[in-house]
Parts: sequence; structure tokens; C-alpha cells
Amino acid sequence: MSRIGFLGLGIMGKAMALNLVNAGFEVTVWNRNRQKCEELVAHGATFGDSPKAVAQACDITFAMVADPEAALAICQGPNGVAAGIGAGRGYVDMSTVDDKTSGTIADLIHHAGGRFLEAPVSGTKKPAEDGTLVILAAGDESLYQEALPALNVMGKMAPYLGGVGQGANMKLVVNMIMGGMLNIFSEGMALGQKSGLEGQAILDVLAAGAMANPMFNIKGKMCLEENYDTSFPLKHMQKDLRLALALGDRLEQPLPTAAATNEAFKQAKKSGYAEEDIAAAHKVNR
Amino acid sequence: MSRIGFLGLGIMGKAMALNLVNAGFEVTVWNRNRQKCEELVAHGATFGDSPKAVAQACDITFAMVADPEAALAICQGPNGVAAGIGAGRGYVDMSTVDDKTSGTIADLIHHAGGRFLEAPVSGTKKPAEDGTLVILAAGDESLYQEALPALNVMGKMAPYLGGVGQGANMKLVVNMIMGGMLNIFSEGMALGQKSGLEGQAILDVLAAGAMANPMFNIKGKMCLEENYDTSFPLKHMQKDLRLALALGDRLEQPLPTAAATNEAFKQAKKSGYAEEDIAAAHKVNR
Amino acid sequence: MSRIGFLGLGIMGKAMALNLVNAGFEVTVWNRNRQKCEELVAHGATFGDSPKAVAQACDITFAMVADPEAALAICQGPNGVAAGIGAGRGYVDMSTVDDKTSGTIADLIHHAGGRFLEAPVSGTKKPAEDGTLVILAAGDESLYQEALPALNVMGKMAPYLGGVGQGANMKLVVNMIMGGMLNIFSEGMALGQKSGLEGQAILDVLAAGAMANPMFNIKGKMCLEENYDTSFPLKHMQKDLRLALALGDRLEQPLPTAAATNEAFKQAKKSGYAEEDIAAAHKVNR
Amino acid sequence: MSRIGFLGLGIMGKAMALNLVNAGFEVTVWNRNRQKCEELVAHGATFGDSPKAVAQACDITFAMVADPEAALAICQGPNGVAAGIGAGRGYVDMSTVDDKTSGTIADLIHHAGGRFLEAPVSGTKKPAEDGTLVILAAGDESLYQEALPALNVMGKMAPYLGGVGQGANMKLVVNMIMGGMLNIFSEGMALGQKSGLEGQAILDVLAAGAMANPMFNIKGKMCLEENYDTSFPLKHMQKDLRLALALGDRLEQPLPTAAATNEAFKQAKKSGYAEEDIAAAHKVNR
Repeated sequence: MSRIGFLGLGIMGKAMALNLVNAGFEVTVWNRNRQKCEELVAHGATFGDSPKAVAQACDITFAMVADPEAALAICQGPNGVAAGIGAGRGYVDMSTVDDKTSGTIADLIHHAGGRFLEAPVSGTKKPAEDGTLVILAAGDESLYQEALPALNVMGKMAPYLGGVGQGANMKLVVNMIMGGMLNIFSEGMALGQKSGLEGQAILDVLAAGAMANPMFNIKGKMCLEENYDTSFPLKHMQKDLRLALALGDRLEQPLPTAAATNEAFKQAKKSGYAEEDIAAAHKVNR
Repeated sequence: MSRIGFLGLGIMGKAMALNLVNAGFEVTVWNRNRQKCEELVAHGATFGDSPKAVAQACDITFAMVADPEAALAICQGPNGVAAGIGAGRGYVDMSTVDDKTSGTIADLIHHAGGRFLEAPVSGTKKPAEDGTLVILAAGDESLYQEALPALNVMGKMAPYLGGVGQGANMKLVVNMIMGGMLNIFSEGMALGQKSGLEGQAILDVLAAGAMANPMFNIKGKMCLEENYDTSFPLKHMQKDLRLALALGDRLEQPLPTAAATNEAFKQAKKSGYAEEDIAAAHKVNR
Repeated sequence: MSRIGFLGLGIMGKAMALNLVNAGFEVTVWNRNRQKCEELVAHGATFGDSPKAVAQACDITFAMVADPEAALAICQGPNGVAAGIGAGRGYVDMSTVDDKTSGTIADLIHHAGGRFLEAPVSGTKKPAEDGTLVILAAGDESLYQEALPALNVMGKMAPYLGGVGQGANMKLVVNMIMGGMLNIFSEGMALGQKSGLEGQAILDVLAAGAMANPMFNIKGKMCLEENYDTSFPLKHMQKDLRLALALGDRLEQPLPTAAATNEAFKQAKKSGYAEEDIAAAHKVNR
Repeated sequence: MSRIGFLGLGIMGKAMALNLVNAGFEVTVWNRNRQKCEELVAHGATFGDSPKAVAQACDITFAMVADPEAALAICQGPNGVAAGIGAGRGYVDMSTVDDKTSGTIADLIHHAGGRFLEAPVSGTKKPAEDGTLVILAAGDESLYQEALPALNVMGKMAPYLGGVGQGANMKLVVNMIMGGMLNIFSEGMALGQKSGLEGQAILDVLAAGAMANPMFNIKGKMCLEENYDTSFPLKHMQKDLRLALALGDRLEQPLPTAAATNEAFKQAKKSGYAEEDIAAAHKVNR
């Protein structure tokens, strides 16, 4: 069984790394704020001094950080992944980044002799904990085959989507649809409740029809209870909408509904809900 | 078992009336174009001469017509439902109408001594055929109780939502969410395919996540096959979006995503897809 | 010189009627709230008891009321204009109404034997006071010729646009463009000021370019001074946007920017600015 | 009189450089495609071998190129402006770029010992030819004072707006407002003409009111004549809308109307009108 590195122990990364440890992998962890490593180490992980040190010590290093800037930062510089990866080893970036950043990271790793796979995920805290993420893999196919046992611990589905950039693109497409669905749902709830309907009745009717889906159940309950504890931070959704719109701009694809959704999430950020769950977009609509 | 009338034998109405006949109800049918009654009569229904005649002959008369204008038309005038309903009998309008029209119809029926229930449905051709519609009932509660056996033949769920207008409002909320979901889905499919992803892969990934829902499967397949055979006509969806936005206007509820969706469906109408299925909105986005 | 009636003495109507009095016309005035007539009577106008009484006593009766409902209300019923107009006399409705309402009013007047002209105006309080409104006349062309001397007192331009409905349509087009211009201007001001630019510098640069227009000067100053004293009430602009969108819906004309603008004005109404000037839309954007 | 360099001889740059030559400045010109220099040389300009050579030979070098990538490209590398500027000389970039690019260029010039001014312009081909551009200057104030005589030849107004980035920001604000105005105008024209109004009558009424502005006259005439000869290429407007929205994203400023406008211009690009004038956006709306 290969030695596994894991960089980035935020809400998502911590749950994913813990699943790898619990599945019996030998895992070396690193996080910008070292304190967050302690729980993993207590469960049997090893502490790594830097992204470079982890990449040097492991056959495959995974990363799960907050945004394109952070994803780039941990690869560059004297302590970055590229400085440690060497020939033959592999790097799997599971963060959500735009395809340009993913391409830059792929270049850095390839120039250092490593192999690269981008593998952004669909799913939030709960699926990360349950190992039921949907993992969108693209890049070096031999690395994909070697990483598959670990990917299958973290997710329930990890299709190979093609060359570098296609995992990031799939992620943006899926999250753009999620953002749009969530906002039209929220507008519908707000409209219905203002017209005198019970919020629960709206959820029941939706659950009985062709649009029934787990997200409406989960986020709908949060809206009714006015409980916006963060599983997917609103600011990250807005970032994904921004990136999806930027992709649409490059491809000359008009996206009027997605653009309106993005502005709604920007309004939610302006209103102070950036750190709350995506469901907090409802606070603007209701 | 009560005598049942059924007015309007379009795509939806024909399937619903047939289910009532097959369930053993004694059904009298009427349609503006008389020819459409023949199949029902062949299955055992009786032919009615006019909405008035049907309402006179039956304990409860159901109607399922295309729009608010038609719904009003079959109630008014010397041959209308109101002219025949008399004291104690019931009228259940299952068409999708705005709450103002529903209120006008309620007034017409009440002034003629009848009882009224609005019961618009969520679901298209297939659920109508399978008797699995979601029926949204509101109005006279005693009539609701008497109509329930017939409603349960046509649908899998028929909650009582309150006074006249609340069924129409629920329908608009649900269809507005459906239109928004469909359009953001279509934008996502178009964006993904332009970026080089396989359409089927996008459907697979969506089906594995928290957004999985029957509509994406059905409409997604239609988009991939470029088969837009009508189950829910696009022009009716655009009408519902218009009515939902009008409701939002009255209630001072901003609905920016729904408004953008409405313009997308208007563009699809302008492009000549009014009579095709709602999935044909994808022809504008792709 | 013909006897003139004037119905509706709100912000606009009062200024227009006063100009007619000052120009030497013999004017009979009526207002729902009678107190508002007093200033006009002090300047030489005669008080009329009802819309019917005014229409009976005058050769041409003008009306300027707040919305389609009010415009219809003063024509109908035992005390309405139609009850008093009789053969040969003329009615000129200068209120902003949708073309359906205008058609209904035209029918009422025609059935009563009168002639009808719709003549909605472009311009707010100041042009009303200065007699520099833009008047959009459509309907009976002989009445247009007779009313022209009075129209020319109230406005600087009163083109004849065609049959009944075309004046209302022109008004909606113009106000829809005004609403859209105002909101993109407000978004630009908000963006610029947030980026550190002086608001006055933005106004200066706009005033020097191809987009220079009186409205930006006037409303821009209001935004900088945070003074939203009403000359054109925000709720009336939102009403016109709603009517323009409804017209677009009937004509299958997509209007995505107008729809986004309408939602912005709805948000301003929801935020409590309905009675303030249209410039108060900036309070939502800034 | 100082020696002047000019880089970039597209539609705009050529007209601006010609005005400088005609005003008596000693001008050295460079363009990626050398052939475009010939007309200028015929009028008395000197040909420069590279951006570096021009910057070395001149006291102040101006640049006017198509986009941020081109603006960066002519500054970097062995033949770039930074390689030639040296201590004390000045560089004035008049291209439309986002503030990040402008900051990068400022850094390049400053590190090479030069002084930097960004000075994007508002106005298209005609004002460039007439020397009536609005020039938005920001950066090194001493360079601003030295460049002012040349700026006053190219424009009618050249206010100093503050530190590097503020010129670019003002340009984006102004062009975002222009794009929004143009699209709501186009929607209004399309709506009005579909309702049966004469296009010219709409232009006349707009020209008589508070919204009267030169752009509506010019672009309106182009729409009526269906003549979209390029003075401001549509793809550049869409680029500015994209950059303005990106600025709004960074500043957490929702811009729903601008976002809808951007999607309309993207639709126009998708429809094949990228190289036509911005007025060609009307071809999508009408």
C-alpha cells in the first residue's frame, strides 16, 4: 500500500484525510495552521513539515485547499510541492480551481518530473465525512489508476474525465447548477411563504414531484429553521459561480440565469453572509 | 359512487379522465372539439353537450383546460358551468390559472349556489397517465372531502392547502422552481459540452450527487437526443413564469433569477419553440 | 376658446391644470380628495362635482391620475366620465396606463358617443410645471386637432402617434429606457465610489462624453446629496417597468436587461422606498 | 517640445498619433504590424523598431493597444518598453486595461526607473479623430503635468484622478454605463417597433426628453439604417463589461443590470457580431 500525503485540513480536507487514515493508509498530513493537524496525528497520521517534505516522503500527495491562490501557493517556492515531488511521484489536487490555475500547477509538477491529476469534488461536509464524495478526475491516467484505491475511500464515484482541466470544468458546471437550483428554490420558498403557504407544505410538494432531490430537503430544512451552520461556505459558491461565468466568457457561452444567480450570491456576501452556509442566500430573498 | 363530469380533453385531461373511467367512475365528458371525446366514450364515458349540461348532470365536475382565458370561458355564458351547477353540486378546476382568475371562477360558482375547489396539478403527461400527479387543492373543504376518492385516482398526493387561491399559488411556486432548475441545468450542460465534457458524463455526475432528481434524467436525455416531443409545452411554462412573476410583483417579492429564466423561455418562444417541450429551452442555450 | 375639464390633481395634474388656467383657458377641476382643488380654484378654476359633471360641462376633459385602476374608475359608474360625455365632446386621458386599459376606456367613451384620445406624458414634476412635457397622443385625430392648443400649453412636443394604444406603448418604451438608464447609472456610481473615485468626478466625466444627458445630472446630484425628494415616485417607475414587460410578453419580445432593472426597482420597493423619487433605487445599489 | 513615442496604431491609436503629428510634436511610432506605420510616417512621424527602441528615444511614450494582454506584452521582454525606458523618462498607457494589469505595468516601469501614468480614454473613432476624447489620467503626477500638452491635443478633458488604477476604474465605470444604456435602448427600440411605433418617432421622443444624449442619436440612426460599421467594436465593449463585473466582484458590489447586459453582449458575440459596432447588439434584441 502506497504512502499517502494530504495537504490542507479545512472542513473538507480533515474529513477526507481521516477517512484515509481509518481505511489503513499510511498518511502524512500538513496544514498552514499546524494545530489543525493534531487530531489527525492523534488518529495515527504523521506530521509533515512542509508541502515539499510531504511530497518527498509520499508516493502520492493529495491536496484540498480553499481557492486557486492557495492551491498555487502550496506548489510554488522552496517549500512547495514542486520542490519535493521528484520523478515518478504523483500529486492529486482535489481543490476547486479554475482551469488556468490547474494548468499552471500541472506545468509546475511536470517540470519537476512528477505526474499530476486534478480531482475536484462535488459534495460538502457530510459526504466528505461519509466517503461519498463525487470525485472528478482528470490528467495523468497512470496516476489515476494508482490513486483509485484512495479516491474510492474518499468518494463513491471517481470517473476519469480526460486531460487536465476537465475535472475543474466539470466541478464548475456542477456547482453552477447547484447555485442556480438553490437560488430559484429560495426565491420560490420566499414567494410561496409570502403568499400564505406553509414552508413545510412547499417542501412536501417538491419532494413528491419530478424535482425531488436531497439538496432541497437539506437546505429547505435549514431555511425553515433559520439555521445556516456552514457545510458549504457561501463565499466558495460565489467563487465557483464567478469561475463558471469566466469559463463561459472564454467559450462565448451566454449564461443569463447563472449571471443573475451570481449577483444574488454577491448580494448575500455584501449582506455579511460570506462565511455562512450557501443556504444563507435565502436571507436575502425571503 | 358519485357521478363525475370532466371538461377539457387535451394531453393532460384525456389521461386523467381515462383513469377515472378505468377506476369505475361514471364519467360524463365534454371538449370544445367534440372529436376528442370519442376515445373516452369508447371506454365507457358519456358524452355531454356543454359545460352547463355536464355540471347539471354530475355531482362533481372537474375541468382541465389550457389557460386562464379558457378556464373562465367554460364557466361563463348560457352554456357555462355556472349556468348548470345549481345548489349543492361541486366544481373542481384543475387547470393552471392565476389566483385572480381562480377567484373570479369561485365567485361565479358560489353565486350560482355551487361549491368550488381549485386543484391545479404538478406533473406532465406521464404522471397524468400513471395517476401520479401532485394535486394542489384549495377552496371548499367539504367538496375537497367528497372529491378526494377521484383526486386519489388522478394523483398520488392531494393535500388541502387552504382558501381559494392557495392551490394556484403553490402551482406557480413549484413551476417557477421547475423552470429555473431546467434553465440553469441547460446552461450548465451547454457550458460543459462546450468545454469538451461528454453530456452523458455530466448527467452521470449530477445523478450521483445531492442534486439528483428525476427531471434532470428525463430532460437531460431529451437534450442529448435532441428530441423535444412535448410532454409539458414550453409556452405553458413561460405562462406560469409570467404568472409567478406577477404574483411576486403584487407581494413585493424580488425574483431576479426567475425573471432571467422567464426571459430565457421568452427567447425560446421567439425562436419558434413554443409548442415543443420545455426541454427545448436548451436549443437557445446550447 | 373651448371649456376645459381637468380630473386628477396630484403632483403632475396640479401643475398641468395650473398652466392651463394661467394660459387663459376656462378650466373646471375635480379631484378624489376635494381639498386639492382649492389652490386651482384660487387661481380661477371652477370646482366640478364629479367626473361626470366635468365631462358634461366641458368641450374637452383631460385626466391625469396615478394608475390604470384609477384611470378606469373615473370613467365608469354613475358619476364617471362616460356617464357625462355625450355626443361630440372629447376625453383626453394623460395618465400612464397599459394599452388594454386604454382600449377599455376608449370603448366606454365611444359607446357613450364621445371621442377619445390617450395622451400619456414623458417628464416629471419640473417639466409639468414648466409646460415642457413630451405628450404622446393617439386615438381620434379630430379631437387631437382640437386639443392641440391645450396640449401645447402643457408640453413642448405633442406628436400624433396613431390609433388608441400607441401613446401608451410609446410611454412604456420611454419609461422602460429611463428605468434601465437610471439603474445602470446607479450601479456604475456605486462601483466607482467603492473603487475610490469621487462621485462628482464620475458625473463630470459622464457629462463630457457621448452619454451626457440631463437626467444623469439631476439624478446624479440627488444621489450624491442623498436627497430623494420625489419628483417621479419610484413605485410608478416600477409599475411602468411591469407594464412594459407585460407588453414584451404579449409581443414575444425578450427584455432581459429591463427584467433585471424591474427586479432592482422591486427590491427598492421592498426596502421601503416606494414613495421616494426613482433616484432612491441608488440606496439599494450603493 | 518633448520627443513623443506612440505604440499601437489601430483604429484609435492611428487617429490619436496623427493628431499629435499634426499638432507639431516630433512623434516616433511603432505597431506590431509594421505596415500600419506607413501612413503616419508619410505625415512626418519617425518609424521605431520596437517598443524598447521607442521608449529609449523619447521623453514620453504613449501606448494605445487592444487589450490587457497586448498592453502587458509590449512592456515585457527584451524588446519591451521597460527594457528601454531608463531613469526619468515617462510611459503613458492609454489602452483600456483592468487595474491589476495596470498595476503590473506600473511595477515594470517603476523597477526600470521610469515614471508611469495610466490614461485610458472614453470615446471612439470620431472623438479620437477630432481630438475630443475624455482622457482619464492616474499615476505619477509629475509625468501628468509634462504629458498634459499632448493629452490636451488628443482629448478635450484630461482630469487627474489619483493613484495608478483609478483611470482604469473610471473607464470601466463609464463603459459599463454605456453598455447598459445601449442595451436598454435597444430593448426599448425593439419593443416599440414590435408594438407598431415608428423607430424614428421613438428617437424623436427620446431626443425631446431628459434622457436625450448624443449616443442614442448616433447608435439609434445606425440601428434604423441597419448599418453597423465599427467605431467601437462590440467585443471590446463585452471585454469592458467583463472587467467591470470582475471589479464589482472584488469590491463585493452586486451589479445585476450590468450582468444582464454582459450576457446580452455575449449573446451578440456568439451570434457572430464581435467585430461589428456595439450597436450590433440590437441585432439580437430586435
